[in-house]
Amino acid sequence: MQTTIPLVSRDPSAGTVPLSIGPVEVGGRRLTIMAGPCSVESEEQILATARAVKAAGAVFLRGGAYKPRTSPYSFQGLREEGLKLLARARAETGLLIVTEVMDARHLETVSEVADLLQIGSRNMHNYTLLDELGHATRPILLKRGMSATLEELMLAAERVAAAGNDRIILCERGIRTFETATRNTMDLNAVPYLKRATRLPVIVDPSHGTGLWWMVPPLSRAAIAAGADGLLVEVHVDPEKALSDGSQSLSPQAFEAMMSEVRAVAAAVGREV
Amino acid sequence: MQTTIPLVSRDPSAGTVPLSIGPVEVGGRRLTIMAGPCSVESEEQILATARAVKAAGAVFLRGGAYKPRTSPYSFQGLREEGLKLLARARAETGLLIVTEVMDARHLETVSEVADLLQIGSRNMHNYTLLDELGHATRPILLKRGMSATLEELMLAAERVAAAGNDRIILCERGIRTFETATRNTMDLNAVPYLKRATRLPVIVDPSHGTGLWWMVPPLSRAAIAAGADGLLVEVHVDPEKALSDGSQSLSPQAFEAMMSEVRAVAAAVGREV
Amino acid sequence: MQTTIPLVSRDPSAGTVPLSIGPVEVGGRRLTIMAGPCSVESEEQILATARAVKAAGAVFLRGGAYKPRTSPYSFQGLREEGLKLLARARAETGLLIVTEVMDARHLETVSEVADLLQIGSRNMHNYTLLDELGHATRPILLKRGMSATLEELMLAAERVAAAGNDRIILCERGIRTFETATRNTMDLNAVPYLKRATRLPVIVDPSHGTGLWWMVPPLSRAAIAAGADGLLVEVHVDPEKALSDGSQSLSPQAFEAMMSEVRAVAAAVGREV
Amino acid sequence: MQTTIPLVSRDPSAGTVPLSIGPVEVGGRRLTIMAGPCSVESEEQILATARAVKAAGAVFLRGGAYKPRTSPYSFQGLREEGLKLLARARAETGLLIVTEVMDARHLETVSEVADLLQIGSRNMHNYTLLDELGHATRPILLKRGMSATLEELMLAAERVAAAGNDRIILCERGIRTFETATRNTMDLNAVPYLKRATRLPVIVDPSHGTGLWWMVPPLSRAAIAAGADGLLVEVHVDPEKALSDGSQSLSPQAFEAMMSEVRAVAAAVGREV
Repeated sequence: MQTTIPLVSRDPSAGTVPLSIGPVEVGGRRLTIMAGPCSVESEEQILATARAVKAAGAVFLRGGAYKPRTSPYSFQGLREEGLKLLARARAETGLLIVTEVMDARHLETVSEVADLLQIGSRNMHNYTLLDELGHATRPILLKRGMSATLEELMLAAERVAAAGNDRIILCERGIRTFETATRNTMDLNAVPYLKRATRLPVIVDPSHGTGLWWMVPPLSRAAIAAGADGLLVEVHVDPEKALSDGSQSLSPQAFEAMMSEVRAVAAAVGREV
Repeated sequence: MQTTIPLVSRDPSAGTVPLSIGPVEVGGRRLTIMAGPCSVESEEQILATARAVKAAGAVFLRGGAYKPRTSPYSFQGLREEGLKLLARARAETGLLIVTEVMDARHLETVSEVADLLQIGSRNMHNYTLLDELGHATRPILLKRGMSATLEELMLAAERVAAAGNDRIILCERGIRTFETATRNTMDLNAVPYLKRATRLPVIVDPSHGTGLWWMVPPLSRAAIAAGADGLLVEVHVDPEKALSDGSQSLSPQAFEAMMSEVRAVAAAVGREV
Repeated sequence: MQTTIPLVSRDPSAGTVPLSIGPVEVGGRRLTIMAGPCSVESEEQILATARAVKAAGAVFLRGGAYKPRTSPYSFQGLREEGLKLLARARAETGLLIVTEVMDARHLETVSEVADLLQIGSRNMHNYTLLDELGHATRPILLKRGMSATLEELMLAAERVAAAGNDRIILCERGIRTFETATRNTMDLNAVPYLKRATRLPVIVDPSHGTGLWWMVPPLSRAAIAAGADGLLVEVHVDPEKALSDGSQSLSPQAFEAMMSEVRAVAAAVGREV
Repeated sequence: MQTTIPLVSRDPSAGTVPLSIGPVEVGGRRLTIMAGPCSVESEEQILATARAVKAAGAVFLRGGAYKPRTSPYSFQGLREEGLKLLARARAETGLLIVTEVMDARHLETVSEVADLLQIGSRNMHNYTLLDELGHATRPILLKRGMSATLEELMLAAERVAAAGNDRIILCERGIRTFETATRNTMDLNAVPYLKRATRLPVIVDPSHGTGLWWMVPPLSRAAIAAGADGLLVEVHVDPEKALSDGSQSLSPQAFEAMMSEVRAVAAAVGREV
């Protein structure tokens, strides 16, 4: 690969450069666990989920306020109302917030609540949005596009860095292949590859990477064993009633059980949760 | 497929509903040929190309002013200056203009010059942009995402229609596969599939679909034979000096030769140029 | 591409080298149409289909005696009995026979009936079978593997040629991609690519390439417009009762209608049926 | 998925059914490590590698005698001579032997030396070979085809079982996708999926799954963390001089280092080496 990525490439002597977000350091010895529902649905739902994921070891609450849904007739998120609910969960639990920004015009509003701005797979190639992120006051969680090559993912990160914001975390979330048994094909090759080619922390989203809740724990363990710096996991207090992605969401109990497995694997590879 | 696309779906008794853009009817018996350079580079380049493609039978001049390039360090287009050059080419030749809009904030400016607003592959999943297009005063050329299913392409069109603008043309431009001999894999299955499932005109971009200029004529003939309503073709007065996509651009001479082949195939399937 | 394929590569001054099989020349001005059922099912079925496809312009009868089915519990073909029925159809109609050989141990038996030995997609990478074909007394129809690159297809042909049999026809039959609306993605880029890189005739199988009978006519027209030397099409006297592949089989009436469209396109590109 | 796979499907109350091969139990608490060169090249090479992988914890020696190479002009393996060398390595070290059988006609010869018969990716769809394996006296290591769905892999195993041999191990070895940074895309989703859907042990080949030696340790750790029952790893005494696959082969030193990492992860998930 002959890609020129001067800003996000790795200094061979330095390895991953950890990124500080509030009290959390992403990319260091301690893993960063981000968990929460696909969509913010109600105060009750987001607060209950926040308490549960915090108790199990998460330091970030994830939750979509603006939702990129394939059909225009599906639930599109609570939007500003969702952001307010995330702020409430943050105030109550102390969890940091990661949530998606879909449009440059929402950047300021979302940044008031979010500690970390998620760029979704559908927008990894949205270059005018990436350019705007250069001026963002928050760090960026950049998810790999559904069929983006690793080179393209790195170039998207380079674009954000070139625009002025080099506080970036990369996220592998599964790619589109011929396989239909799972929603996507989790590409864990991406983890050591990106860790070697860039200085950026790399986390993994096994919920979208598999699409099936019972596959999230084994793939979470695998991601950590492969060297990932953290996880982004969908957890819902009542997965069967979720307005989106219920089939890939863990219950709080399943998430807690998974976290103890993740702790064991983390220790085996010299990390901790 | 159980997709709900009430607005763009087809009335079985009606077939494709032609779309009028100025004097041109897209989706009727006459094919719509759109041709021009990947990027607007200079007045000389765009005017010379415009004259050449008009002489050969094109009714739309294509040309990128805002360019979505994978690397932030590549040429990103002449932007407003490029739009002015397109307007000049339009004034001189009478060709209609199709050019890409990458950001909702450019919508008004681009619409002053463009007769047809191109949404590029990288933005087919950019839902906030699609929503804005509902208010656009111009019709939309919606290109298929690099790994978008046909269902997702139809849902993206439905989103634009649901937002208020049902004047849409679909464009197949090749999909991402394992094959590396060509830039993309042209999916001509898409043509009869989309023509049957929707009422929208369908055109084909063999330049991106193949990535190799010498493959553009055979795939253009094939697209027309498969039932496409038109072509979107890259033509450059001097392909070897093009600032982008030179290897897939036809010279004016090659384009003219191709057009006579396309005319013959069109006649064989009951169409004309 | 740096592939070394000395035996099947093209002499730039010569173009495709036509291949004579009995009275038929494959790869010349006249297109070669091969048609018939997926599987030979009964004397009545194969004879009725043979008469119908001959009347419509086919010169080869296709029909599977040995069937590679994904499930071991599906119908696996009539085997030797199927070969006898093909021989009967050949004797009655004068059509040449193309049928699949799945195993080197069947080579002699199949060669007694077949004028052209089909190697199916699942066996394109079966190198011991390819090596045996070097000693075959019949020419080979080599189908592209489901995810074989064009380079791998050419190397498979080179292997047969290196083993002693350079009488080979290549067949594009669709590749495996993420798209689920169609059975496979027909890759018509393959046609001009293979015609330029090799001296071998190239035919197209739109039945497997689409998986839907109503898409076979437009893709057949497209294949011919792209420069293919012929077609391999599934036709069944009663598609709804077919033991395999009924949904992608044309009725004799639909095949006849398609053939008149194919004739028109062929004429437009300087070919004839 | 509606696949009917009565013979290899899982009894929900039983989980994976371990398979005994000599003193080794595959699919139990203890992981099964298979390691060795891509190709058997010489007595010196195979014996040195065998001693090294045994010392590091392998219980099977892998090594190709018959090699399925994409180009007919590449090294095709030492064949019978290679089998003799494997027998010698077995006699000296006590390692069990796993080696590929490419053709039913080699089945008896290979079975004299091999304790486990490998069916390579290129032959997963070679149904006449699968049918013959029903009569084999040895268990089968069935590698997933390059673009085989998990359903097709299970059906291929079912075919072998239906033919009379239900002693089968499945092997995930990476699938073909658009990504070019790695040789294949390792699909670790396959591990929990196959373990849940079938009663068969599942192992992983990270050498082919990545194509890059430095990615083999992290992906090996990941495979074990995901629940795999073992690994199939390419190790060569002098990777830079390997006649095939050198870039994905580990040196004995790198393999030994990796094994201690694998041991730690195995312990973390309740397994041992």
